[in-house]
Amino acid sequence: MRLFTVGPVQMYKATLDVRSCQLPYFRTSAFSEIMLENERLLKDRLGATEDFKIIFLTASGTGAMEASVINCFDGKDRLLIVDGGSFGKRFCEICDIHRIPYDSIKLKWNEILTQDQVLEFTEKAKYSALLVNADETSTGQLFDLRVLSQICRDNDMYFIVDAISSFGADYIDVAEMGIDACIISSQKAMSLAPGMSMVAISNSLYEERVLKQPRKTLYFDFREHIDNQKRGQTPFTPAVGILLELNEYLKRQDKYSKDRVEDNAKYFRRLLSDNGFDVPTYPLSSALTPVLLDPHAFEYFTLLKDEYDLFVTPCGGELKNVIIRVGHLGALDKGDYDSLIKAMCEIRSRFWGEQNAE
Amino acid sequence: MRLFTVGPVQMYKATLDVRSCQLPYFRTSAFSEIMLENERLLKDRLGATEDFKIIFLTASGTGAMEASVINCFDGKDRLLIVDGGSFGKRFCEICDIHRIPYDSIKLKWNEILTQDQVLEFTEKAKYSALLVNADETSTGQLFDLRVLSQICRDNDMYFIVDAISSFGADYIDVAEMGIDACIISSQKAMSLAPGMSMVAISNSLYEERVLKQPRKTLYFDFREHIDNQKRGQTPFTPAVGILLELNEYLKRQDKYSKDRVEDNAKYFRRLLSDNGFDVPTYPLSSALTPVLLDPHAFEYFTLLKDEYDLFVTPCGGELKNVIIRVGHLGALDKGDYDSLIKAMCEIRSRFWGEQNAE
Repeated sequence: MRLFTVGPVQMYKATLDVRSCQLPYFRTSAFSEIMLENERLLKDRLGATEDFKIIFLTASGTGAMEASVINCFDGKDRLLIVDGGSFGKRFCEICDIHRIPYDSIKLKWNEILTQDQVLEFTEKAKYSALLVNADETSTGQLFDLRVLSQICRDNDMYFIVDAISSFGADYIDVAEMGIDACIISSQKAMSLAPGMSMVAISNSLYEERVLKQPRKTLYFDFREHIDNQKRGQTPFTPAVGILLELNEYLKRQDKYSKDRVEDNAKYFRRLLSDNGFDVPTYPLSSALTPVLLDPHAFEYFTLLKDEYDLFVTPCGGELKNVIIRVGHLGALDKGDYDSLIKAMCEIRSRFWGEQNAE
Repeated sequence: MRLFTVGPVQMYKATLDVRSCQLPYFRTSAFSEIMLENERLLKDRLGATEDFKIIFLTASGTGAMEASVINCFDGKDRLLIVDGGSFGKRFCEICDIHRIPYDSIKLKWNEILTQDQVLEFTEKAKYSALLVNADETSTGQLFDLRVLSQICRDNDMYFIVDAISSFGADYIDVAEMGIDACIISSQKAMSLAPGMSMVAISNSLYEERVLKQPRKTLYFDFREHIDNQKRGQTPFTPAVGILLELNEYLKRQDKYSKDRVEDNAKYFRRLLSDNGFDVPTYPLSSALTPVLLDPHAFEYFTLLKDEYDLFVTPCGGELKNVIIRVGHLGALDKGDYDSLIKAMCEIRSRFWGEQNAE
């Protein structure tokens, strides 16, 4: 089995070694030290200076997205959301549920987000924040965080970035990019087990917003988490195992581990091009490559899984038969992509013949 | 290292073996089958008939407690809460945050909950539900669920039970006991990694309450979870690893695995008695034994950890120096308790002499 998925991904041997050990009790100074080290190293990877705090949540990425919105905003705000697919739409759903007014920049499939589209909104209304997925994981489109950041600075808006699948694959530096809250998850580029999500939050967003909101949740209350993390603890029992995997990962991997992801993405994209497969024309995250296989995409996913034991990521909704998503996160190398492209070519010629590939 | 903690606990070798394997991609029929089997087996263990559904949440137990309250109740309800310690108080905090009116039956340290105390409340006011921790984990007091259940039936109240540390240690049968929502967690008697919590909810509570509430959360929305679980899936990426550990556990352990926990509890309590250590007089859960070591309890915890590599559970707040809690969950046997009692006797004579033990 090889996982070319976008999470959980193919895990590193070193992570599996950590997973095979008995978990420790966590209300100890030894575990606190690990958590303080996790915070320090994660801040380093994210370019988060002393102006940031890290919040460790035992939850999927969606839990951390919802927690970030409700800890920082309420019905008196108006948010601007880039809705480029199912993960952008998730921010909209969160605002609907919590009755936080928002406008969404709705992108059609294959439509590239432009600066002008955003400015059209910010010129007409006043927003408290811009919410965006660094890459929209359902399509692989990478948004230009520097451009969006400048718009936030010019319009006095907080900048909230879901970097769940982008972190570790694309360049990110929260201080340099003026990001106020950056959300990441354990099971993406870090290739750990799913179940932990982290938020790097700027002191200004924390002090100006979180501290001034009434408490809306016990489990996701950022104040409790930040107060506890001062001594390297969490308010409730965390996913201790994943936090140990995280510690091993952060000590093993340096800032440049995304080179591996980028190399794999470039290599696979050249293989696709050499073999007559097409990809969309929008800017791509290195986390994954969407491959245009309309109308056979879901059949490719199924055949790769059932006949080759190779797992790519299928799409839902209108893209189900249009694209598959091939991930570049995790313990994969060029040989894995050679196997995948060979299988894809075999499927194409066996079932539809060369000419029907796209 | 041996963990006599109340979670995470000493894991079974079979669980560690599952943990050492590469995680699969989860949006597949193979994983769905595992999840449907998890639901079936877990219902069997809980005595949950076809009148119940299981919700799988990637969260600590506190997340599942909060999710249960907000999915079922709102400001128009009045809840009755047994507040016998820090976990009972947690239900109160959740109601405070979400502005749900409640009364709490506040027990003093060492006070036994009586039927009359509860009736005093139910005779004076009308409540939508009774919320209780099957055992109050901060003290180890086991509440009489049958008595409480009868009060709920007599007063047309829903019965919400946090069985997080009690499940797998004490007798529980949700249908027989008239429980409408039963909350459990992965890292207690099942001895899995922390990070997943499950709620068994009765169809009547689900249909009469959950389906009639407006959606208050995206991440913890019970409807989404139940709709997805019909096909063996979760709405968001779950802690896939723990769900596989759960599957192995449920297939390995039968309904009677709590015998091991009970045996360990009985054995250790006899050792305590034989060696002149005292325990409180309230009814005890088999999950843990509180040992009275006033005023040296926290020193025992520290010395056992630092000098013997034995981890018991310390208390916070007013009980910090009064009791330690010795867990009976997980892969422990009589030899482990022999080592623990030997260490406790050594500490007692070395530091305080026999006469100052209690």
